[in-house]
Amino acid sequence: MQPKMTSAIHSVTAVDEYGQTRTVQVAGEMPLKLFLDECEIVTLMTLGSYPEALAIGYLINQHLIKDLHEIRSLQVNWNMVEVSTFNKDKKINHNTITSGCGRGAVLDTISDILLPNLTIKQSLIYTLLQTLTQQDEIHRQAGGVHACALCHQTEIFAFVEDVGRHNAVDTVTGLMWLHNWASDDKIFYTTGRLTSEIVMKVAHNGIPILLSRSGVTHKGIQIAQTFGMTLIAHAKKQHFLVFNGEKNVIFDAK
Amino acid sequence: MQPKMTSAIHSVTAVDEYGQTRTVQVAGEMPLKLFLDECEIVTLMTLGSYPEALAIGYLINQHLIKDLHEIRSLQVNWNMVEVSTFNKDKKINHNTITSGCGRGAVLDTISDILLPNLTIKQSLIYTLLQTLTQQDEIHRQAGGVHACALCHQTEIFAFVEDVGRHNAVDTVTGLMWLHNWASDDKIFYTTGRLTSEIVMKVAHNGIPILLSRSGVTHKGIQIAQTFGMTLIAHAKKQHFLVFNGEKNVIFDAK
Repeated sequence: MQPKMTSAIHSVTAVDEYGQTRTVQVAGEMPLKLFLDECEIVTLMTLGSYPEALAIGYLINQHLIKDLHEIRSLQVNWNMVEVSTFNKDKKINHNTITSGCGRGAVLDTISDILLPNLTIKQSLIYTLLQTLTQQDEIHRQAGGVHACALCHQTEIFAFVEDVGRHNAVDTVTGLMWLHNWASDDKIFYTTGRLTSEIVMKVAHNGIPILLSRSGVTHKGIQIAQTFGMTLIAHAKKQHFLVFNGEKNVIFDAK
Repeated sequence: MQPKMTSAIHSVTAVDEYGQTRTVQVAGEMPLKLFLDECEIVTLMTLGSYPEALAIGYLINQHLIKDLHEIRSLQVNWNMVEVSTFNKDKKINHNTITSGCGRGAVLDTISDILLPNLTIKQSLIYTLLQTLTQQDEIHRQAGGVHACALCHQTEIFAFVEDVGRHNAVDTVTGLMWLHNWASDDKIFYTTGRLTSEIVMKVAHNGIPILLSRSGVTHKGIQIAQTFGMTLIAHAKKQHFLVFNGEKNVIFDAK
């Protein structure tokens, strides 16, 4: 379990519907500039809690690096991450550097990954939903963030909140790489919508089950089918809908 | 009022928590490749209802073009939009082409816009919230989308749903430019979170009031303060919080 930076929350004043001034909490948001081999790649607007993991997850999920072995050094300076690789001559294709919220071209990279069959009990889905909704400290205090988590059975390996839906996914996968956690026994949870790029990122990291509080797009389902991913959306309280891989869900709860 | 393409909704089967197979509706998502002067800029993952307006809004909000007068031609071909300008020699800075969900560098462009003071009655906020939540056809049927609207008093000039939070904002501002609507008397509504880039885009288009169902980040508030924008978040049913410009809100409802 990673530590969380609650300094990501700011107190501000706001006027409510009664015209009364109230002190409320809002999420922080800072620009994190990412450089790869001295080339400026992107500015990520982030809560800023895990710059290293976010940078690594972003580079891997954008297919700019394949794994950690390509990295010679990584330096975090306040609002800047500089990554240098062993192979500086590799040409960066700027057209691919566009991901986030339906901006991405990662879909162009067709992969031949076939995810392993991992079963999940309905009772585990309920336990996870209950545990995870108790962890969203920043969301509860300040709103304006999405959460992602990486779970094995009832154990939460990582729980990350960020102002960007994609940042939270990138950070959790970055943590997975940094800690060298296995992917094939994990469940990926997100509060965000399962658009194609999110499904693609989770598949690309070899995680066989994806669980979301929110909805899913048609293309998201198609990608899950291609990779053999178990895709569960609209998971809230006692409800959920399995959009792919229902053979992997064990209906053990009444 | 623009027409909506309900063919953006797909019927799929899903298995619910009782193990029962159900037919449910999900939102479509298609890649829209955007070319500017024969240079591939970005692939936008979109519902696809308004490719022309989305392309124009994106280019203006990314500061890649200033206004419609720069455009010589715009061609939409199924999942591709090709825009050519009168000034093809203008160098495209790839580092700026990164926006969406906390990926953007549009914040680097500091603007000297000061938005006009436009007042909004509390009763109008309630009327708009009621009207707008009745329009979200795709969200109600399929989920997985965000909505944005451009309003003058109780009139809804544009209402757009998209799988990308940023796409919906870009499309509505694109429609504003295409129809040559005035911006200084408009209210911009979004179901999405008010992160810095969203606030910046609405300010950049000269719209003085921004209203959201969701939360706001600290940087979003700071940008609203810089531009003199009235920023209202957490607006749902009878509740809302004014984070900036409370002098422009007339509390006329009990």
